[in-house]
Order: sequence, then structure tokens, then C-alpha cells
Amino acid sequence: MINAGIIGATGYAGAELVRILTGHPEVKIIWYGSKSYKDQKFSSIYQNTFRLVDDVCREDDLNKLADEADVIFTATPQGYLGGLLTEDILCKTKVIDLSADYRIKDPAVYEKWYGIHHESPELIKEAVYGLCEFNRGKIEKARLIANPGCFPTCSVLSVFPAAHGGIIDMSSIIIDAKSGTSGAGRGAKTDSLFCEVNENIKAYGVGTHRHTPEIEEQLSYASGEKTTVTFIPHLVPMNRGILVTAYASLTKQVTEEEVRALYDVCYRREEFVRLLDANVAPQTKWVEGSNYADVNFKLDPRTNRIIMMGAIDNLVKGAAGQAVQNMNLLFGLPENTGLTFVPMFP
Amino acid sequence: MINAGIIGATGYAGAELVRILTGHPEVKIIWYGSKSYKDQKFSSIYQNTFRLVDDVCREDDLNKLADEADVIFTATPQGYLGGLLTEDILCKTKVIDLSADYRIKDPAVYEKWYGIHHESPELIKEAVYGLCEFNRGKIEKARLIANPGCFPTCSVLSVFPAAHGGIIDMSSIIIDAKSGTSGAGRGAKTDSLFCEVNENIKAYGVGTHRHTPEIEEQLSYASGEKTTVTFIPHLVPMNRGILVTAYASLTKQVTEEEVRALYDVCYRREEFVRLLDANVAPQTKWVEGSNYADVNFKLDPRTNRIIMMGAIDNLVKGAAGQAVQNMNLLFGLPENTGLTFVPMFP
Amino acid sequence: MINAGIIGATGYAGAELVRILTGHPEVKIIWYGSKSYKDQKFSSIYQNTFRLVDDVCREDDLNKLADEADVIFTATPQGYLGGLLTEDILCKTKVIDLSADYRIKDPAVYEKWYGIHHESPELIKEAVYGLCEFNRGKIEKARLIANPGCFPTCSVLSVFPAAHGGIIDMSSIIIDAKSGTSGAGRGAKTDSLFCEVNENIKAYGVGTHRHTPEIEEQLSYASGEKTTVTFIPHLVPMNRGILVTAYASLTKQVTEEEVRALYDVCYRREEFVRLLDANVAPQTKWVEGSNYADVNFKLDPRTNRIIMMGAIDNLVKGAAGQAVQNMNLLFGLPENTGLTFVPMFP
Amino acid sequence: MINAGIIGATGYAGAELVRILTGHPEVKIIWYGSKSYKDQKFSSIYQNTFRLVDDVCREDDLNKLADEADVIFTATPQGYLGGLLTEDILCKTKVIDLSADYRIKDPAVYEKWYGIHHESPELIKEAVYGLCEFNRGKIEKARLIANPGCFPTCSVLSVFPAAHGGIIDMSSIIIDAKSGTSGAGRGAKTDSLFCEVNENIKAYGVGTHRHTPEIEEQLSYASGEKTTVTFIPHLVPMNRGILVTAYASLTKQVTEEEVRALYDVCYRREEFVRLLDANVAPQTKWVEGSNYADVNFKLDPRTNRIIMMGAIDNLVKGAAGQAVQNMNLLFGLPENTGLTFVPMFP
Repeated sequence: MINAGIIGATGYAGAELVRILTGHPEVKIIWYGSKSYKDQKFSSIYQNTFRLVDDVCREDDLNKLADEADVIFTATPQGYLGGLLTEDILCKTKVIDLSADYRIKDPAVYEKWYGIHHESPELIKEAVYGLCEFNRGKIEKARLIANPGCFPTCSVLSVFPAAHGGIIDMSSIIIDAKSGTSGAGRGAKTDSLFCEVNENIKAYGVGTHRHTPEIEEQLSYASGEKTTVTFIPHLVPMNRGILVTAYASLTKQVTEEEVRALYDVCYRREEFVRLLDANVAPQTKWVEGSNYADVNFKLDPRTNRIIMMGAIDNLVKGAAGQAVQNMNLLFGLPENTGLTFVPMFP
Repeated sequence: MINAGIIGATGYAGAELVRILTGHPEVKIIWYGSKSYKDQKFSSIYQNTFRLVDDVCREDDLNKLADEADVIFTATPQGYLGGLLTEDILCKTKVIDLSADYRIKDPAVYEKWYGIHHESPELIKEAVYGLCEFNRGKIEKARLIANPGCFPTCSVLSVFPAAHGGIIDMSSIIIDAKSGTSGAGRGAKTDSLFCEVNENIKAYGVGTHRHTPEIEEQLSYASGEKTTVTFIPHLVPMNRGILVTAYASLTKQVTEEEVRALYDVCYRREEFVRLLDANVAPQTKWVEGSNYADVNFKLDPRTNRIIMMGAIDNLVKGAAGQAVQNMNLLFGLPENTGLTFVPMFP
Repeated sequence: MINAGIIGATGYAGAELVRILTGHPEVKIIWYGSKSYKDQKFSSIYQNTFRLVDDVCREDDLNKLADEADVIFTATPQGYLGGLLTEDILCKTKVIDLSADYRIKDPAVYEKWYGIHHESPELIKEAVYGLCEFNRGKIEKARLIANPGCFPTCSVLSVFPAAHGGIIDMSSIIIDAKSGTSGAGRGAKTDSLFCEVNENIKAYGVGTHRHTPEIEEQLSYASGEKTTVTFIPHLVPMNRGILVTAYASLTKQVTEEEVRALYDVCYRREEFVRLLDANVAPQTKWVEGSNYADVNFKLDPRTNRIIMMGAIDNLVKGAAGQAVQNMNLLFGLPENTGLTFVPMFP
Repeated sequence: MINAGIIGATGYAGAELVRILTGHPEVKIIWYGSKSYKDQKFSSIYQNTFRLVDDVCREDDLNKLADEADVIFTATPQGYLGGLLTEDILCKTKVIDLSADYRIKDPAVYEKWYGIHHESPELIKEAVYGLCEFNRGKIEKARLIANPGCFPTCSVLSVFPAAHGGIIDMSSIIIDAKSGTSGAGRGAKTDSLFCEVNENIKAYGVGTHRHTPEIEEQLSYASGEKTTVTFIPHLVPMNRGILVTAYASLTKQVTEEEVRALYDVCYRREEFVRLLDANVAPQTKWVEGSNYADVNFKLDPRTNRIIMMGAIDNLVKGAAGQAVQNMNLLFGLPENTGLTFVPMFP
């Protein structure tokens, strides 16, 4: 059994880790860390786990946890782990960080977009960006995983094959993303109230969303050229789900079949990425509760563009599920262990 | 492996059977019956099963299926199975009927409320009402299971301990139920359109809902006296979930502890019924996607009444999950096989 | 022109007052009081009023406002107005209180249910309970209006004709109410977050909701006998709307026509109460955005009960609309001035 | 009084016309045309109008109606009016067509995108595209108004000032639109069921949506050059509202102030278009129930692009409200008559 600790277990991503790990055959959660709910029963906060989880929430003590856990998941605010993580901790345990602290290789870029001074830049280089589909080999050998952001996961999986295949103008990429409200977290903010979100849609973080440089970095790797994108997220009145609609200009004449072959090469052996049939647009409901990313594309010969689409459950493939997928790789388990949820519809 | 066939696989309850059975370690679905989508790939209709289910929908041929399947699930309109089921079929296979055809012991009552002539009344007696928590022994030996209705499941689980414990006036029971919209099925009706249901709540079937006699019959068994109830369902703008709020007058002075003991005796060994802590009201979201029924009660000394509350996922414990729970009992499997979903929140 | 001031203008009820009064031909809002948003433009908080309202929010200064305003609306927390209102203020201006401070005639009952010491009990007697349909004459002459609570408005309008008509056992009344989430206010609470409310339903305040004694007092007046009710509200995933389903035992044999006549006598001259046709159940969507209360009933001969149903928009007839209806009466305007919104569907 | 007839009164757009015209001081609706609900009371189908509308639905008889009505609104399927309208009818009455039949000047383009043979192409030239903000003069003198589509209304209002101002590359425009479900109409289709739409988002009509050529034509007029756009709509789980997020490359160095001046020139005298303050992104909820279009833009210097955003209520400014705005112009009434709804929030 793998002993796992969670720092930030009572946020939505942390609680989703609890949901998934509770059903994982090789894991025992030994630490439910929560600053806000210390000493309260976890299941009194997330009553969905009533009678399934008996533990009480504990303080967020990374060092103590490092002694006890085989793996630590940090579902914490940006800057938290960056300020605490040390070589010493990484010698004792593996860390899967669901925050952005180790996702971006250039600390200056991180500091600019996040407005946070990075206190452990020396560890960034070692961190492996945990998008399993593309970094599987490195993940297996890592100590520190930077679990990808929800929007970058969906964006990169949607655009990668076209970018890698060299068929799109990398300076033309526009990503219009739509997210369910759980992405805003469980903090009690007016903007996240039911009455403010329901029957409403809006763009937010227009031109300034922090996931932008992460997407750009990954798409730069995909294409081999420095990439700048326009990325605009929108808040949708639903709990879960991210839909990405990405637009780019084609650099050459390609057929539907040629593009399909590019996507197929990337994903045909991937359990968790499903290339849909031609003309089927992804829907977030079709992946809800599961670790799947559904992707597809459509050529628009009138404008010489390609429209690339992807859907994930932001809390699963966009956070906790992908973190467990990374954990499975870290510990040599079959990659889908504990992750074979059939999406729930309706 | 148990070979299972589903008649009516493309309705919401049928598709939920597919979701659950696809993850069931001891079952292989050999027949996806669908009148509406014959010859189409099941996963092209329910894209959540894309790459998980490869089969094509087939006609609804009960007799042919009886030769091939170890168990048949019928998620069909009222009257369908009643018109086709025979002793011959039951000699060949087990049948779990998700319709109402064999739930009510008196065919005259069935015919009155459903307005359908029952064509196989001789089989009603043999049918076992599949509320596992109370009929486990009979279910294990049955050939024909009448899988309970969604409202009766939630109502009976909520009220049974008080009724059985003799503390309530059985003529005083009022059940105010609230249901998600999947209970209305996947038929393309104006009343089920998004714009008609969203931002709206209404009562329906006021005084005439067909689940009334089923609830009455089961509560009569519970209490040992013929019971008549007022049952009013409401349509709620959510996909899944039933909440029951049941009211009854107390026949004696009882304490919170005494009533809790009655509930505890009924449910403490039940995996799928969770008696919540005092003063915690059930919420449908806490059981979503799972086979749990969460129940609780509150005494109101001002009015000498008890308020009994229960929450289920109407498609799981209220339909497909309970059907699989019954199947597990029929085939001697651990009752929770394939049903250990942690509820999804949020 | 009537100069109106609003204390608590940036809560949902206060903002609905702004919406309604902005379109009222005889009113000018001279004071947008807000503790939380002092010195900010009202329309920067409620952008729906962009370019329609230019004013800045001001402190909540009741005494100063009394000098300037012809009428003050207080959409404030319980206890606020009770602690500040004086005879002096009432000599200068009329007050319409949307809180509960002056609704209940017995201060001991108020203090018990609200847990607040009432600091101006001497003014309670003078206050008129502003349910226009029943207290029109008194309202016209009042200085202080206790604007009814949202649940009491809907409950009393639904049950009054039967209670007044003497056909129901007043000790048998059970009121199961369902409310949209705006009733919980705009405070940033975890329980009101989109992800906690969406796809969910629950009872709350079981046996302890503060609107209970208000309903009881009004139904006591209606029937002429002291009345105790069971009242259980539920939180529904929608912004606006209250649906009441009330149950009572009949004390005599009555026909549908006889009961219809009782309702008809009460409401046939009422513009804002619509008795629906037989067998049509009220829906909250049918009154959304309007000041209508839709009511109906159904006899259940099987159980000798009557089911009484009502639907309102909690922010309009349940709060701001009714307050304006009261204002119109106070100032001798046609009762429907500024209130002739056609409900919005869908 | 203007006598108005509605063909297609029981669709969502038709019913919204009824809602608006019922409150219009200068209009009497004399004909509620409905193929589906002939001879039924209109208010029995749209119970929001109970006691407000007494009329019975009548057959869709355009010729008969032309004799009786001063203006006819056609909220009908594509091709209906095109097949029936004649010079003779236009001599007798004015027609405001909410379908697409007369929006596109080139019948070949119409026929290609709609797959319908246009049977009265000779009338297209006369028809005035009823986007009041840009065609006011022509509308005042017209007999036949082609009321703009919901997506084109929001798209054109969002992009026009930039296009007209010559600051964007017209070949670079990408419009990512999000629509509430009422846009799909009241037809009983599986795809529009609550359970299929709720908790879900998807793109639809990818590359083939019929509003594309209408947007292109209008933006061609705006810019003076033939324009081709990528237009992708998405279905959002809400009843009402369209949000447009449009992207284009800048052709010159411009400042925020310069672009703001372009928008301001276009809209500062427009009552129904509100240019929001800098950095405020439009939200559909802020215009719900009203005839407002809220627009704004954001420059993205990193990518040398502009993001243009707009929000409308698809049933009001996107359909019925704009139709009434056109009617007001046709009959010389103040343009805002009957249209001064304050948006409803929440």
C-alpha cells in the first residue's frame, strides 16, 4: 500500500483526490490536511464521504508528513509549496503539486504572471510537468511532479497534434475556453455565489489569465518554436467541465484524413484521450466524473483555419485524476489504476 | 461471468445500467436492446461510453434474449414486460424488471392506477419486490425481481423504521418528494425541455402519481396495517436526485434517542443506507452517482410530528444501482460488487 | 414625485427595489444606502443598472434619511431597524421594513425565534402587516409597514381561503416550501456557492425556521383560532421563486366547486393573486420577475385532505414588489403602479 | 393604437413578442397565430400570461391577417415567409420578419446556407436589415424589415466600431459565441432536453452555422471590404443570453483610448447599446429580460490582437425586443416605447 498525504484536502481538488484515492486499490490516505477545518471530521465537511472516511482533518505540516507518507499531494494556493519545499523533503517522499509553483521553467515568467516571488527556483528544473501522455518516461523517474493546470491540460491535448505536426501557424493560435465553476474553488466569494453564476456567462481574466504562459510553454515544446497565444477563459453555470475551442490558421493544404492521422498517432495508444469520430464535437458531460479528455478538430476551408476542440472534467483529468495518473506512473502501477470511471451521463 | 441483456438500454435508466455494468467485474453485457436506436452503435448515442462499449443496439427480443442471457434487465415502459413475460422465459433466465409491472401485488390496483390491463397477473405473486434492505432472503431465491420505483425506494427507506417501530399514526403520512429531471425519461417532450425546467419548480401528478399505491403497499407491510398516504412529487431543475420529506404524527412520546435507535436497528448493517448524524439533513448531491440512500429524521415537539428525510440518486439506488444490487443477490455475489462508487461532489 | 431612500440597497432585495423603483413613474430614489459598498457607484456593483443609475452608495444613516425621504425602505438584517426606529423618525417619514422586526405582534415570540432582543417593542403595535390583499385599509393609513416575509406571503396566500372558510383542521397544516437561492441573500457563504447549490436539493432550518411564527400568526387571524404549523423550507437550484405545497385535513365534505368559490371570493378582485384553472399546478417560472402570486388547490378524497399550492417570485411579491405595492397604498397611488411586469418565460 | 398580428406566437420568440407587446402602450395584439396550438387559449400554453391575455390561438393565415393588421410579426421557420409574402401583402401592411428569409441580399448565398429555394427573391432588395443602430433611416421608411438573427446582432454590435474604424484585419476575425438554450426553440428535441443541456457545454454547427453569412455581410458593410469570418456557437446551460467573444488582429498601433473613442462615437447616442467601463467584461445576466446590448473590448499587446465582447438577451435584443424597436421606428414612435425594461438581476 502507498501511504498518501493530502495538503489542502478540503478544497474541491483536494476532495476530489479523496474521492478517487478512497476507491484506489493500492492507496491509503494517511493525512487529510486542512488549514480551515483542522480537527473536524473530513466527512462532516464532505458528507459524500460519510461512513467512507473516518479521519479528522489535520494541520498542513509538510515536514512531518514527509516522514510518514510515500507521496504527498499538495492542492494548495500558488506559492505555498514553493515556499516550503526542500531537497530534504524530496529525499524522503515524492511530491505531486497541483498548484502552479513548478510548472513553468523560467521563474521570471512565473513571478511576472503570478506576482509571487519563487522561493525555491533551484527545484524547478527537476520538476517534471505531469502531462502523462507526453512526459511518461520522465514522470516514472521523478521525485517532484508539477501537475498541469486544468486549462493547459485541455488546451495542450487539443492542440498538440496539430502543433507537433507542423500544420498550423503557431502565431495564430486563439484559445477560447469555458469552465465550470468548481475551477474557482470553494472559497466564499461573491462572484462564485449561485445567484451570480446561474443563468449567466462571462469572460474573465481577459488577457491576463495565469494559465497563459503554461499553455505557451507546452505548445512551444510541441512545435519547437516559441509560441504566444491568446487565451480567454469563460465562466459557465455548471459545476464541472472545461471545454476548449482553439483556432489556428493552417500553413499548408491538408485533408481531414491527414489531420486525423496526426491526432491518431498521438492518441491511439492513450487510454485517457479519446479522439472522437469525425464531425462529433466534444461535450463536457460526456467526460464528467472521469479521467478522459475527448478531443476532435474540424477544418474550415472557407477561412483556411482549423478548429480544435477538447473537453475534460476539470477536477479529474484537470486536477485530481491526472495527479493520480502521475502517482500510478511514479509507483510503477498500471496507469489507469483507480481511474476507470465510466463518465456519468446525464 | 454473468451474461446480461438489457431491454430499453437507451433510456436514462438503461444507460445507467450500462454505466454500472461496464464497470462490474462479473458481468458481460451481451445485448443492448433499443427500439429507437436499432442498428446504431450504443456509444454513438451515449458518447460517454465511447471506446468503452463497441456494441450496436439490437431489437427488443425478449424470447431470443432469454436463450442467451443469464439475466435480463427490462428498463421499459409500463405494460411492456407484463405483456410478454412467460413461465417459459423465467425457466431459462432471471428477470429484473425496472418497470412497475410486478411491483403491486393486487392487479386491480395496478390496473386502476396505471390504466393498463395486466396480461400476466399469474406471475405477480412470484415476483419479489427488490428492496434489498428488507427482502434480501427472498431476492436470493427469486427468478423475477420487481425493482422498486425511485420515489418508493426513497420514501420507504425514509419512513420504514418509524412505521415498523409503531411510533407514527399511519393515516397521517404525507410525503412531499422532489425529483431531478432524469426521472421524466429521455423522451422528447416539451415539458422536459431545458427552458421549461430550468429556473422553475412545480408539483406534478397531484393526487394521481402512480407511485402512490406502491408506497402504500410497502408501508402497509412495514406497519402491519393498511396505509394510505398523500404523495406529491415535484420537478426540480437538476439532472439526478430524489429528496423525500415525509411528515407524520407521533402516536407516543418518544425521544430523539429512541427514534434513532429504531433507525439504527434497521440500517446499521446496511452498506447502502446511511443514517446521518443528528441535525444533518440529507442532500441529493451527497449521494450523486452512488447507490447510497441517506436518511435522517427530526422530531418537532411543537406539533408532535416527525419529519423523515431521505435522499437518493434516482438513476442509481432508485433504478439501475438497485437493480444491480438485486442481481448481485440473485447470483450470490457480494451485494456491493460493482457498486462501490463514492458519491461525486460537487 | 415620492422621494424614496433605501437602506441596504446592495443586497438582493434592495437591488430589486432599485430595479422596480427605477421604472416607477412616481418615485425618485434619493438614497442608495449600503454599508459594504459605501462611496462606490451603485451601478458598478449591479451592472444591470449601468447608465440607468448614476448614484453612489451612501452610509446607512436612518436619521438623516428621515429628513430627506418621503418613504424609507429598509432591506436590512433582523434587529437593525428595531434598534434604530423611533417615534421621531415616524413623524417625519413613512417606513417600509423588509426585515422581520415588526411582523410579529408578540415581542416575546420574536425574541424566542430570532434570538434578538427587541429594542422598540412599543412600535410593534402600530406597525401594519403589509399583506395588501388582506390589510389594505390599515395599510393606507399606516406610518410603519412590516413587509411580509417571502415564505409567509406565499404560504398565507395559498392557505388563507381554506383557513378562513373553515374547511380545514387548523392543527393539521403542513407547509413544505421550496425556495430559490436569492432568498439566502448576497452574503459570501460557502453554503450559497454555485457548486454547493447546483444539482442539489435539501431541507434546511428543519423545525426551526424563523418564518414559522409569522405564518402561524397570520393563519391564526385567518381562521380565528390559534394555529401551529409544521413548516419546512428547501433550497432549490434556481435564482428566484418560492413554491409552497401545503397540506391539511378537511373538516367537512366539500366539493371542488365549493372550495373554488372560497378562493374565488378572496381573490377575484385581486390583481396580483391569480387563482389558476382547475388541475393546473402553479410553477415559479410563470411568475418570475412579476408581482403575481399564482395559487391553486386540489382535493384528495382518498385521504380527505386538501393540497394547497402557491408560487411567487421571492424577490418581487415576496419582498421588493410587495413593498412597492405597500408604498402605492401608503401614498394613494393605484396599487399596481410600477408593478405591471408580465412574468418572463422562459 | 397599432393593431399587431403575430404568426408563430407560441414559439419562444413569438411568446416574447407577446410579453413585450402586452406592456406596450401603443399596441393591441389582434392575432395570436399558432399552427401547433390552434383554438387553444394562448395563456393555457404560456401561463405567465394567465389573466393578461384572453385570446385563443388562430391559424397562420398571412393574407387574412394582412387585411386586419397594421403590422405583422412573423416568428416562423426559415422559408415560411419567403414562400408566402407578396407585393400585395406589403401594400396592405408592414411586415417584420424574425426569420432569416430577407436578411441576406444574395439569394444564392441564402439558398446555399439554408438549403431552401427562395420563392420571393424580388422582395429581398426592398427589405431593410433591422439593426436599428445602423439602419435607422431606412427602417423608418420600410415596409418589410428583416429582423436580425440573435448571433449576428450580438456579433455585429461587438465588432462594428473596430471594423468600421479600420483598425482590424478583416480576414482575421474569429467569433466564438455562447448561447442560452431558448435559441434552440421550443421544439421537443432530445438535444434540447434539460438533462442533455444541464451541466454541459458543447460547440455546435461547427463551420456550418447559418448565421455565418449574415454576420459576414454586415461586417462587409461595416468595413467596406468583403469579409469572411470563423463563427462557432456553443450551447450553454441557461435559458437566455448570448455572449460573443470576437478576436481580430490589429492593423495598426492603437491605444485603449483611441479604440474607446471609436466605440463611443458609434454608441454614445444609442439607448440600447451600453459601452461598459474599461476592464469590465459583459455578462449575459446584466442584460437579461432587457433590450440592452452590453459591449466592450480589450487590447492584447502581447499578441497584437483585440478581443471584442458583447452580451444580449437573445429573445429580446436578439429577437422580439429588436423587432419592437423596429416597429417603433416604422410607426414614428419613440424608439424605446415599451422597451424600457431594467435588466433583472439575479
